[in-house]
Amino acid sequence: MPKVIDSTPKADGFRMPGEFEPHAGTWILWPERPDNWRLGAKPAQKAFVEVASAIARFEPVTMGVSHAQFANARQMLPPEVRVVEISNDDSWVRDCGPTFVVNDEGVVRGVDWDFNAWGGLVDGLYFPWDKDDAVACKICEIEGVDRYKAPVVLEGGSIHVDGEGTCFVTEECLLSEGRNPDLSKEEIEAALCDYLGCEKVIWIPLGIYNDETNGHVDNIFAVVRPGVVVIAWTDDESDPQYARSVAAKEALEAATDARGRALEVHTIHIPDPLLITEEESQGVDAVDGTLPRLPGDRQAASYINYYVVNGGVLVPAFGDRHDEAARVKLQELYPDRAVVAIESAREIILGGGNVHCITQQQPRG
Amino acid sequence: MPKVIDSTPKADGFRMPGEFEPHAGTWILWPERPDNWRLGAKPAQKAFVEVASAIARFEPVTMGVSHAQFANARQMLPPEVRVVEISNDDSWVRDCGPTFVVNDEGVVRGVDWDFNAWGGLVDGLYFPWDKDDAVACKICEIEGVDRYKAPVVLEGGSIHVDGEGTCFVTEECLLSEGRNPDLSKEEIEAALCDYLGCEKVIWIPLGIYNDETNGHVDNIFAVVRPGVVVIAWTDDESDPQYARSVAAKEALEAATDARGRALEVHTIHIPDPLLITEEESQGVDAVDGTLPRLPGDRQAASYINYYVVNGGVLVPAFGDRHDEAARVKLQELYPDRAVVAIESAREIILGGGNVHCITQQQPRG
Repeated sequence: MPKVIDSTPKADGFRMPGEFEPHAGTWILWPERPDNWRLGAKPAQKAFVEVASAIARFEPVTMGVSHAQFANARQMLPPEVRVVEISNDDSWVRDCGPTFVVNDEGVVRGVDWDFNAWGGLVDGLYFPWDKDDAVACKICEIEGVDRYKAPVVLEGGSIHVDGEGTCFVTEECLLSEGRNPDLSKEEIEAALCDYLGCEKVIWIPLGIYNDETNGHVDNIFAVVRPGVVVIAWTDDESDPQYARSVAAKEALEAATDARGRALEVHTIHIPDPLLITEEESQGVDAVDGTLPRLPGDRQAASYINYYVVNGGVLVPAFGDRHDEAARVKLQELYPDRAVVAIESAREIILGGGNVHCITQQQPRG
Repeated sequence: MPKVIDSTPKADGFRMPGEFEPHAGTWILWPERPDNWRLGAKPAQKAFVEVASAIARFEPVTMGVSHAQFANARQMLPPEVRVVEISNDDSWVRDCGPTFVVNDEGVVRGVDWDFNAWGGLVDGLYFPWDKDDAVACKICEIEGVDRYKAPVVLEGGSIHVDGEGTCFVTEECLLSEGRNPDLSKEEIEAALCDYLGCEKVIWIPLGIYNDETNGHVDNIFAVVRPGVVVIAWTDDESDPQYARSVAAKEALEAATDARGRALEVHTIHIPDPLLITEEESQGVDAVDGTLPRLPGDRQAASYINYYVVNGGVLVPAFGDRHDEAARVKLQELYPDRAVVAIESAREIILGGGNVHCITQQQPRG
């Protein structure tokens, strides 16, 4: 009996759990649009099958898919993945899906943010985005969970929490002109605390270089566990990423979290610059109003876009010389979880994100 | 973890329960197509809200709806009705939805029949019907129940069962040229028994006069409980329905069910002929390939298209002089259930069916 609640999670005693807390399962949306995914999205679909299959080893997976692709998705995916119809404008459920919150009694609710394709008419990535904006509601309805409608433009990839009162964001994204230009930084902090059940917001200046999401936090930063975080790093001082990573490290090392703890900051080196090839670019339909995928464009590839599931960690693998170090470091940071490399991560980053961007955890109630 | 099972319910110890057995809930599909429902389906949508709201008093209701109508359906329906995206060609989930079967351990599975819009290219009611044909699979996926794919063209409205081994059908429908012309009557009986977990099929010759479904059994006949049935009746010997009802009565009185019982046959008088008005006809879009709704067309109105829910019975009311007698008779037949009249039943029959046709029960596991 789902309904819209005219209150806030914080007022009702709800909080967003850390991604490392137990999941009921994971949501994914099937890639389809040929103006973002090359070759009619067929290589991306194989990559999404790899991700869904990897997660399904650890927890239930539900794939949302348009009617047009329903039969194809059902056939390509293993039977243990549940397939449900959810129309979408593209396959980034991290960003358009609900942010789930829980209370101490184990009740689960959804937060339904406004979604405007990463910047609306200012610098959004495609038009229209009405199907995406309905995804959070549809997921809550399927699960029968009540829903908060947050009157704020926000994507799930632009926030991270430690589950103990601290929220992490980037100024580049949260203060961007295309999202909430009428809200002050203080008003945005208040909204984050109200809808995520947090007490403190820690601001990182910038995200990953050339990240089309206006620097989502989830590509440069992740919470390993309360008090322990990890950021994307590069030793190459000539890389435009260098100053960004240094700024992130400094901001985090200067901060204390909601519980008053200093943060232990780990780093994982980014892969070498990942550029779109001529062949890859030619596979993408040109459509007015959709961000083009041009040869030589540097994609915002980062191992920090990993995704934590029950008993596992999925990390992008790009066929890069830094892949193995990233895997080893994550295994150190998550000694009790199996680290699984997603070998087709290049196909996902070609569409603009990675494993974390295409998944959304539903916490266990 | 839903999957397709390469077997039959009967072989696996599953049976279709009687509609009067406990439900987990009810499925409905939202009316939308303007070439079947007058005035852009707005009056029909109000009628479906009446039905969904009435059922929700007794058990959970899930409404399947296209993306285009999702927000509108969510707004028109009460919050206790779950709304999920299910594309469809029209709103007859009785016919395109799964037939649920159960075993003694309480496991629920779905039977997914072939659907061809009541006769395919021979005498089907619209083209195409691919979205309808995917509805059963989508419902099973949402519920996470395993599924049998039955290689037979069949609609749920063309069968009734007593839950104790007996299936009831009409020859007019099951032997129609547009469904399974390559199957003999015996082969159809075998398929019914295999996929419904029955031992005996009782054949009624004809359905309701001018029923566009080729005489679905669920408009002329219902099982009250094992051994007790009810049929649509008329005392008017000049009505073409008269001989049809007499033939049904004779067939049922001559039969014994799977348990060897003679049947107690009750009757409920049909309403006076219900004709489409000029105004009603003008509200419907004309589309090549869709059955037209012409002024003066007699609709197959019948109180027997009632629907049984946990603790209740929903019966169509047409504003006809026979409404009250039907209600009273059903209250006699179902003394422990609340009989609820659906006052907007005329809007539903204008689209070609009634309360039973637009609902599909999911048995309690």
